[in-house]
Amino acid sequence: MYFNLVMLVSIGSIIIAFLFALEILRKDAGNEKMQEIANAIKEGAGAFLKRQYTTITVLSITLAIIIFLIYALSGKITYGWHTSLAFILGALCSSISGYVGMYISVRSNSRAASAAGRSMNEALVTALKGGAVSGILVVALSLLGVAGIFLLYGGSANPLEVPLLIVGFGFGASFVALFAQLGGGIYTKAADVGADLVGKVEAGIPEDDPRNPAVIADLVGDNVGDCAGRGADLFESTAAENIGAMILGIALFPVFGIYGIIFPLVARAFGLIASIIGVLSVRIKEDEDPIKGLNRGYLVTTILATAGFWLSTKLLLTEYHTLFFLAGLVGILTSFAFVSITQYYTEYRYRPVKSIARASETGPATNIITGFSVALECTGIPVVVISIALLLAYFLGQATGLPHGGLYGTAVATMGMLATCAYILAMDTFGPITDNAGGIVEMSGASENIRKRTDRLDAIGNTTKALTKGYAVGSAALAAFLLFSAYLTDVHIESVDLAKPVVFIGAMMGAVLVFVFSAFAIRAVGSAAYYIINNVRKQFKEKPGILEGKEKPDYAQAVDICTRGALKEMVLPGLTVVIVPLLVGILLGPEAVGATLMVGTIAGIILALVLNNGGGAWDNAKKYIEAGAYGGKGSFAHKAAVVGDTVGDPFKDTAGPSLHVVVKLLSTLTLVFAPLFLILHAVK
Amino acid sequence: MYFNLVMLVSIGSIIIAFLFALEILRKDAGNEKMQEIANAIKEGAGAFLKRQYTTITVLSITLAIIIFLIYALSGKITYGWHTSLAFILGALCSSISGYVGMYISVRSNSRAASAAGRSMNEALVTALKGGAVSGILVVALSLLGVAGIFLLYGGSANPLEVPLLIVGFGFGASFVALFAQLGGGIYTKAADVGADLVGKVEAGIPEDDPRNPAVIADLVGDNVGDCAGRGADLFESTAAENIGAMILGIALFPVFGIYGIIFPLVARAFGLIASIIGVLSVRIKEDEDPIKGLNRGYLVTTILATAGFWLSTKLLLTEYHTLFFLAGLVGILTSFAFVSITQYYTEYRYRPVKSIARASETGPATNIITGFSVALECTGIPVVVISIALLLAYFLGQATGLPHGGLYGTAVATMGMLATCAYILAMDTFGPITDNAGGIVEMSGASENIRKRTDRLDAIGNTTKALTKGYAVGSAALAAFLLFSAYLTDVHIESVDLAKPVVFIGAMMGAVLVFVFSAFAIRAVGSAAYYIINNVRKQFKEKPGILEGKEKPDYAQAVDICTRGALKEMVLPGLTVVIVPLLVGILLGPEAVGATLMVGTIAGIILALVLNNGGGAWDNAKKYIEAGAYGGKGSFAHKAAVVGDTVGDPFKDTAGPSLHVVVKLLSTLTLVFAPLFLILHAVK
Repeated sequence: MYFNLVMLVSIGSIIIAFLFALEILRKDAGNEKMQEIANAIKEGAGAFLKRQYTTITVLSITLAIIIFLIYALSGKITYGWHTSLAFILGALCSSISGYVGMYISVRSNSRAASAAGRSMNEALVTALKGGAVSGILVVALSLLGVAGIFLLYGGSANPLEVPLLIVGFGFGASFVALFAQLGGGIYTKAADVGADLVGKVEAGIPEDDPRNPAVIADLVGDNVGDCAGRGADLFESTAAENIGAMILGIALFPVFGIYGIIFPLVARAFGLIASIIGVLSVRIKEDEDPIKGLNRGYLVTTILATAGFWLSTKLLLTEYHTLFFLAGLVGILTSFAFVSITQYYTEYRYRPVKSIARASETGPATNIITGFSVALECTGIPVVVISIALLLAYFLGQATGLPHGGLYGTAVATMGMLATCAYILAMDTFGPITDNAGGIVEMSGASENIRKRTDRLDAIGNTTKALTKGYAVGSAALAAFLLFSAYLTDVHIESVDLAKPVVFIGAMMGAVLVFVFSAFAIRAVGSAAYYIINNVRKQFKEKPGILEGKEKPDYAQAVDICTRGALKEMVLPGLTVVIVPLLVGILLGPEAVGATLMVGTIAGIILALVLNNGGGAWDNAKKYIEAGAYGGKGSFAHKAAVVGDTVGDPFKDTAGPSLHVVVKLLSTLTLVFAPLFLILHAVK
Repeated sequence: MYFNLVMLVSIGSIIIAFLFALEILRKDAGNEKMQEIANAIKEGAGAFLKRQYTTITVLSITLAIIIFLIYALSGKITYGWHTSLAFILGALCSSISGYVGMYISVRSNSRAASAAGRSMNEALVTALKGGAVSGILVVALSLLGVAGIFLLYGGSANPLEVPLLIVGFGFGASFVALFAQLGGGIYTKAADVGADLVGKVEAGIPEDDPRNPAVIADLVGDNVGDCAGRGADLFESTAAENIGAMILGIALFPVFGIYGIIFPLVARAFGLIASIIGVLSVRIKEDEDPIKGLNRGYLVTTILATAGFWLSTKLLLTEYHTLFFLAGLVGILTSFAFVSITQYYTEYRYRPVKSIARASETGPATNIITGFSVALECTGIPVVVISIALLLAYFLGQATGLPHGGLYGTAVATMGMLATCAYILAMDTFGPITDNAGGIVEMSGASENIRKRTDRLDAIGNTTKALTKGYAVGSAALAAFLLFSAYLTDVHIESVDLAKPVVFIGAMMGAVLVFVFSAFAIRAVGSAAYYIINNVRKQFKEKPGILEGKEKPDYAQAVDICTRGALKEMVLPGLTVVIVPLLVGILLGPEAVGATLMVGTIAGIILALVLNNGGGAWDNAKKYIEAGAYGGKGSFAHKAAVVGDTVGDPFKDTAGPSLHVVVKLLSTLTLVFAPLFLILHAVK
C-alpha cells in the first residue's frame, strides 16, 4: 500500500511540475528585445547541454559495459546486468531532470524579467515556480527511479537484495552528476572570468554589456552551472541516500518487515508534498522584501515536512516511532543550523565578511590572506554540528534497543535533513533565473524601476545559491556515515582499521584525492577561460565596429568555444576521481578503499566548505564595499575586493560544488565495485 | 657499551658545535657599520626570545603541574612525576637548542657579510658552520636527553617501561616547538608584511632600507622564525621519533634484547658523525656556484650516513640486519625524493612556477588562482611516495618473520630518513644567516661585488629553506605511522575503527583541527602586522626627518611592538591544538582520539604541503619575473606576482611550518595522556 502511495506521489508530483511549467510558458515572454536575448541564452544552453550529454552518454555507456564485463568475467552475470541496467537508468533519470530543469529555467528568465515590469510578487513567484519545476522533478524522478527498480527487480531477485542491486542507480546518478556539475562549473566560471577580463578590464565596458561577445556565454553559464549542475547534484543526493537507508533497512527486516526498507521512500514522498505546498504558499505584498516571502515558504515546508515525518514514522516504524521521529528532527534542525552557519560566514552583516572588506583597504594581498583565513576557519563549527547530530541520532536510534538501531537512527536523521530538499532546490534554481532576468533587463535597456526589482531578486538569488551549497554539504556529510555503513554491510567487513598500513594508505589516498581533484578543477577553469579570452580578442580585432555598437558580436561562436573548452577540461578531473578509488580497491582491497571513502569524505566536506564559503565571503566582501563601505565602488579597497571575488569564483562555483558530488560518487562507486574488491582480496 | 657510544657521540658533538661556535666568534665581525646593524638584530632577537621563552616557561610549568595532578589524582603518582619531569626536561632541551642556535646565528650574519668581502668560499663556510652549530646541537641534545632519561629512570623503573615514560620528553619538546615555531612564524611574517606595506607601498622606499623603522624587526624575524622555530621543530622530530622507535623496540625485546630499544639512538649517533664530516667537507673554488658545494656536502653526508646505518644494523640487529638496512635505505631514498619533489614544485625551472608567472600577465586574481591550484596539486606525488615507502618498509620488516617486524621496518625507515638530519638543519639555518648577511651588506652600503656574493648566497638560502620544509613534512609523514603504532601499543587497543560513530567523529575533529589552526595562525599574522604598521606610520609622522635620512628611526620600538603582537597572537592557535585532542580523548575515549591523531596527521601533512609549496611557488614566480620574464621588475605581471608572494608568506613561513609541529604534537600529546583516556573510558 505504502509503495503505491510512493508511486502515486511521485507521478502526481511530476504532473504538478508539468503544470507549473505550462503555467510559466503561458506567461508573457517579455518584449521583443528581451525575447531575443532569452533566445540567445536558450540556444547557447541547449547547444552546451547537447554536447555535454553526448560526452556523458559515451562515458556512461562505456562504464556500463565495463561494469557488466567485470561481473560477467567473475561469473556474476545476473548481478552484472542488473547493476549495469540500474546504472544506465540512474544516469538517464539524472540527465532528464537536469535537462528539463534547464529547459524551464531558460524560459522562465525572460518571463520573470517581463513579470518584474508588472509587480515584484509576480516576478518572485514566476522565478520560484520556474525553480520548483526543477526541484520537484529532481526529487520525484529519484523517488520514482528507486521505487521503479525496486518493483522491477523485486520479481527476479530476493527483495532483500534489491537495495544492493540498485546502488547501480545511485552510481549512474553520481556519475552524470559529476560531469554535469564539473562541466557546468567549468563552463560558467570560464565564461565569467573570460567575459570580465576582456570586457571589463581590457575593453573597459560594463558587465552584461551587449557589445561583449562573451556576455551570452556568461548568462548561459549561470544556467548550466547552477541549474543543471546542482540539479544533478541533489538528484544524486536523494537517490544515494534513499539507497543507503534502504540497505540499512534490510538489517531491520526482522523487526519492521518490508516497511523498514521502504520507509525512506515514504518519508521522502511526504517531504515532496510539503515542498509543493511550500512553493504554492509563497506570495508577498508589493512593498515587502521578497526574501521574507521565500523564508515563509521555507517555514511552511519545514513544518509540513516535520508533520509528514511524524506521520510516516508513526505508520511504518510502529512502537519505535517516537525515537526515530526525534532522530528525524535532529536532521531537520541540522539543515537549519547549516543554513545559519553559511549565512554567518558569507553575509556582510557579520564579522567574517566585514574583516575581509576591511583588509581590502591594504590591497589585494591582505584581502586574499584574510579571506583564506576565513575560509579555513569556517570549517570548524559545521563539523562540530555534524558530529553532535551524528551522535544524537545514533544514540536515539540505539535507545530503541534494536540491532543496528543506532545506524538506522543516523539514516532517519539524514532523511529528515533531506525532507525539505525539493523546496531548497527550487530556491537554488531561482538563483540563475533571477540572475538571467537581471541580465536580460540590463541588456534590453529596461527602466530603472524594473531594474531595481530584478537587482534585488538577483541579490536574493545569490544568497539562496550560497545557502543551498551549505545545505548540500551538510546533507552530504550526514549521509556519508550512512553510506559507509551501507558499504561495510555490503562487503561484510566489520571494521576499517586505520592501524593497518594498507588501510592507512587508503585513507591518505582519499584525502589527497580531493585536493588533487580540486587542483585539476580550478586549473580547468583557467584553461577554458583562455579559449574564450582569445575568441573575444579575435572578435574585437576582426570587427572593430563591435565596440562602437555598430556591429553585432557573434555570441554563438563564443558560446561554442567555451562549450568545447569546458567539456575538454572536465575529463581529467572527472576520470581521476573514478580511477583512484578503483585502483585503491583493486590493489589494496575493500578495507583500504573503505578508508579512502571515509577519509576522502571528511577531507572533501571540509575542503568544500573552505571553497564554497571562502568564495561566498569574498563575493560579499566586494558587495559590501560596493554598498558604500571603505570608499565604495571604484576605490582602492574595491579594486582589491574585485581580485578576491575573482579568486573565489572557481572555488565556489566549480571546485566546491563538484566536491559534493565527488564525496557521494566515492560512496556509490565503492558500493558498486565492492563485490569486485572482495573477489580480488578474498580470504585475507 | 653501545649506550656509552651514544653518550660519547652526543657529548663529543656538543663539543664540536662549541668549537664551531668559537671559530665563528673569532672571525672578523665586519666593519663598524655592519656591526652596528648586526648588534641591532642581535638585541632584537634577544629581546624576542627572552619574552617568548618567558611565556613558554609559564605555559610549560602550568602544563607540567596539570600533567602531574591528573596522574596523581588517578593514583599514578610515580608515573605522574616521571612524566612531568621528562616534560620539563624536553621543554628545556628544546629551548636551549633554539636559544643557542639563535645566539650563533645572529653572530654569524655579520661575520658572513664580512667574509663575503674576502671570498665566496669563506662566506659560504662561515654561514654553513653557523648553521651547523644549530643543527648539531639540536640532534645531539635530543639524543643526550632521551639517552639521559633512559639512564635516569632505568634504575627506578622497569627498563622496558622507560620509553613509555619518556614520551613526556617528546611532549615537552613538541610543546615548546609549537610555540617557538608559531610565535617565530607570526613574528617574522608580521614584520615582513608590515615593513613592506608601509615601507615599499606607502613610503616608496626600497626593501632593507635603513630609513624603515621596521627593517631590523624584519631581519630579526628571519632568525626567530626560520632558525629558532625550525630548530625546535626538528629537535622535536628527532626526539619524538627516537621515542616512537624505542617503544616499538620493546615489542622486539625477546629477539634483540635491549639492542632493539637503543638501536634508534645508535643509528642517530652515526648520522650525527656523518653530518659533521659532511659539513667539514664543504668548500668551493672561487668561481664555483656555492650550491654545488652544499650539494657535495649533502652527498658526503648521505653516503657516510648510509654506511653508518649499515654498520649499526649489522652490530645491533644481528641476523636480520640486511632487511632492516634495506628498510633504512627506503627512508634515505624517501628524503631524496621529497627534496626533489619540493624542487619541482617550487623552482622556476619547472612547469608549476612557470604557469603561475604566466598567469600573472592577466593580473593578481589569475596569479592567485593558478598558484592555489599548484598548491593543491603538489600534494599528490608526495603522498604516493610516502605510501610506497611505508608499504616497502613494512613488507621488508615483515619479511624478517619477527612479531611486529613490519612496524619495526617502518621505524627503521624513519630512522633512515632522519639520519642526515643535522646536515639538513645546518643548511636550513644557513638560510637566515645569509639572508641577514645580505641585509647587512645592503644597509651598510657595501660594494656591488660583495653584494652580488651575498645575493647569490641569499638566493641559495631561500632554496635550502624550502627544501628543509619538504624534508620536515616528509619525515613527519613517515614518522606519523610509527607514532600511531606506539600510541596503540601504549593504550593496548588493537584497532582504530572508523566504522564506529565516535571514532569517525574523532577523525573529523582531527581533520578540521588543522584547518582551524591554520586559519588562526594566518589571521594572527594579519593582526600582528597591524601593530607594526601602526607603529611605523607613527614614527614617520612624529619624526619627519626619518624619510629624509636625517633622523634615525627607533628600531627597538618596532621590534618590541612586533614581539608583543606575535606573542599575544600565538596563544589562541597554540592552545586550540592542545585542547581539542584532549577534549576528544576525555569525551570520546582513546580510540576516537587515535582517529583524531591519524586523520589529523593526514590532513596536517597535506595542508602543510599546500601551504609550504604554494608559498614557495608564489615566491619564485615573482623571482622568475624579476629575472626578466613577462616584462621583468615593475611590469604589470610583476605587480601581480608581488601580490601572490605576499599571500604566500604567512602560508609558507607561519602556518605551514607550524603544522609540522602540530602533527607531531598530536602524537606526543595523545601518548602522554593515553593513561588518562584509558582510565576515563575503561572496559567499554
